[in-house]
Amino acid sequence: MKTYELIKKKRDGIELSRDEIGYMINGFVKGDIPDYQMAAFLMTIYFRGMSPRECVELTMAMVDSGVKVDLSGIRGFKVDKHSTGGVGDTTTLVLAPLVAASGGIVAKMTGRELGHTGGTVDKLLSIPDMNVDMPKEKFVEIVNHVHVGLIAQTASLAHADKHLYALRNVTATVDSIPLIASSIMSKKLAGGSDGIVLDIKTGVGAFTQQYEDALKLARTMVDIGEGVGKKVVGLITGMEQPLGKAIGNAIEVQEAIDTLSGKGPADLVDLVAELGANMLLISGVVASRDEGINLVKHNIQTRRGLEKLGELIEAQGGNREVIENPGLLPQPRVKIEVEAACSGYVEKINALDVGLASKILGAGGKTKDEPIDLSIGIYLNKKVGDPVRKGEPVAVLYSDGDKNKINPARERLLNAYIIGPARLDPPRLFYARVSKEGVEELQ
Amino acid sequence: MKTYELIKKKRDGIELSRDEIGYMINGFVKGDIPDYQMAAFLMTIYFRGMSPRECVELTMAMVDSGVKVDLSGIRGFKVDKHSTGGVGDTTTLVLAPLVAASGGIVAKMTGRELGHTGGTVDKLLSIPDMNVDMPKEKFVEIVNHVHVGLIAQTASLAHADKHLYALRNVTATVDSIPLIASSIMSKKLAGGSDGIVLDIKTGVGAFTQQYEDALKLARTMVDIGEGVGKKVVGLITGMEQPLGKAIGNAIEVQEAIDTLSGKGPADLVDLVAELGANMLLISGVVASRDEGINLVKHNIQTRRGLEKLGELIEAQGGNREVIENPGLLPQPRVKIEVEAACSGYVEKINALDVGLASKILGAGGKTKDEPIDLSIGIYLNKKVGDPVRKGEPVAVLYSDGDKNKINPARERLLNAYIIGPARLDPPRLFYARVSKEGVEELQ
Repeated sequence: MKTYELIKKKRDGIELSRDEIGYMINGFVKGDIPDYQMAAFLMTIYFRGMSPRECVELTMAMVDSGVKVDLSGIRGFKVDKHSTGGVGDTTTLVLAPLVAASGGIVAKMTGRELGHTGGTVDKLLSIPDMNVDMPKEKFVEIVNHVHVGLIAQTASLAHADKHLYALRNVTATVDSIPLIASSIMSKKLAGGSDGIVLDIKTGVGAFTQQYEDALKLARTMVDIGEGVGKKVVGLITGMEQPLGKAIGNAIEVQEAIDTLSGKGPADLVDLVAELGANMLLISGVVASRDEGINLVKHNIQTRRGLEKLGELIEAQGGNREVIENPGLLPQPRVKIEVEAACSGYVEKINALDVGLASKILGAGGKTKDEPIDLSIGIYLNKKVGDPVRKGEPVAVLYSDGDKNKINPARERLLNAYIIGPARLDPPRLFYARVSKEGVEELQ
Repeated sequence: MKTYELIKKKRDGIELSRDEIGYMINGFVKGDIPDYQMAAFLMTIYFRGMSPRECVELTMAMVDSGVKVDLSGIRGFKVDKHSTGGVGDTTTLVLAPLVAASGGIVAKMTGRELGHTGGTVDKLLSIPDMNVDMPKEKFVEIVNHVHVGLIAQTASLAHADKHLYALRNVTATVDSIPLIASSIMSKKLAGGSDGIVLDIKTGVGAFTQQYEDALKLARTMVDIGEGVGKKVVGLITGMEQPLGKAIGNAIEVQEAIDTLSGKGPADLVDLVAELGANMLLISGVVASRDEGINLVKHNIQTRRGLEKLGELIEAQGGNREVIENPGLLPQPRVKIEVEAACSGYVEKINALDVGLASKILGAGGKTKDEPIDLSIGIYLNKKVGDPVRKGEPVAVLYSDGDKNKINPARERLLNAYIIGPARLDPPRLFYARVSKEGVEELQ
């Protein structure tokens, strides 16, 4: 009867204690609490929300449900970054080497997500011979040596989350701020970092499309992290159009190499500089955000970040020649230009539609076990504000040649582009910085 | 994915169509929709409520999920009564014969409920040789001949309700007005009557303890019934203290016989007269409530109701001598007097505690299959407003002699009685009458 009473208590808006939340999570993981009671409980959380304290307790109950990674063998302050996801988000591949090159330490476990495109693990696997699974000791050794390591997240991290997510996914309880926040933070906290910079996307291609929701999510996650003694900063950033120009796996590695070579798209460079500056700031490497931004940009110009990516690839068994010769990456069977139907300026690119187009092409894989063709993707020649002539290619599809995929993907992509007479500024990239000190608006 | 979308739709406060509600109920009954999705769906209904139209659709989907009883073989307007339950509610046994004796037709299917005490079926079964299970044809014949019949409800009536209730019971979704209303009304509508008088209890011994909730429940049920062309009236009545003086099975049959002999407790007589008058009014037998009340009371005085109970018992195979010789009913092994601990007036009797005391004694049975000792019960010598002297018995326990039951039952019963210096009026019995015309306050 205890489970029943806890569902009722939460349903009636009464705050639950640490023990009560632990009872629900442990009971569910052990199979003592059936799915139907957990589903009802999740729906009460959807409607009633959770207090900051409850969010911390829920997160820690989830952390305690699985393996916790002990990174104490790594010397120094370990800083992590998490993005709530978006379209064409190459950030990690650029950011991690740059932060390491700038004096930070990045020991990052990364997901193989199901979504529009593959996760960071899939992008890494498009580098020949790259190894993302290794014993912890090896990982610790690499990070101590290179100051950066990127490996695949084990499923047993925050064990409860996997089961809870599966249930949320079929009971319309995914889009609940406390449940999203505890899901993300439980994995980050189990991952053993000392500080975390969160990149919370807002806009049409993002999970939290409304700014107010993104802000609430950011605050909840910062509260959770600070509540357990971690340094956490949340940046709310725009996802009105895809970030950078590449969407896919190998194609995003190529873009990362370009960016670390000083030839990156402006929005990707700016985002990496802002995220990197905050990571360096909470690591104590720099004294101000401005100092951090300058340091990161300097390490792009000097190619120290690119050099660090090479070291990382080599340490993890990959072929570091790829940074000088990106032709070693998987190449698509065909590249198909998508031509503008009219002349004018790009006024808008719907990030969600671009993501769906890349999914149609096959960049994402339909199930967890289906192998992904890592060469597939989309390259955007034109972004918001760019002039375009009728017949000029706005984008290039990297395809396996299957017309049943190409045609609908092309159609979806053309739908994503709004071309009109107005020369607009690129959409806003930075909205706010959320820390335990409060919310600071960013320009 | 359709189930997911319907959960989300209801979660977001969007009204569901008839087809959508039918899809959920049918899918659940067929086993296509798993318990965890139904649990989430029920919780969205708890939080979002349902529009009057949705309540009708839900009720009818539940009616359609099971067997519908065709009572068209019964001539005339068939009127039914339903009580939302309380403690010591002998009403049906008094009311049904009186309405029949007054010119109405009562073909009632009644439940074997799990609760503080047995259901009406258990009370009927304490009459020697009484038969409550028979083919429909036999039931129709009895009602056409005697104008009243009382049989056990089959489980296949409103099939969905049984499964939904089991799930609601473990997911804290029982106390939702649309779910309660559709559960009750689906069984009533499947039962085939033309008109229904609902007795919705409010007060400490009732399901809807607050008047506002009782009113909302009454309105919802009246709307559902009228929405499908039935005549429905809801009476909101008080359950501050137990109704009448008897709680149990055989003991309540005894009380019914006493009441039909003109020796009934005032509150039971008044409630029966009010319910009966409304049943006769919607049946078109009388032109006003006052006329109905007078007719019912007249048929108590003339013992025509008692005579009708005798006919009913005989028609259903029972020994009609019981109405003249109640000693034929099961008698308890021992009767134990519960003595007042102080002198004064009865200021309050907590109906819930009295119900629990009778349950402790064994009047209810713990599971559906455990046989009930029909002789067990409680007789209340004293009710609110009665003077009492220290040492005088306030109540009598009808017991099987088991001290492990007697002692805690006695304690619970003494707790139920508040004896003090104030001579109070009996608590309010009538609150309101709800019909399609609106809400009328009752005195």
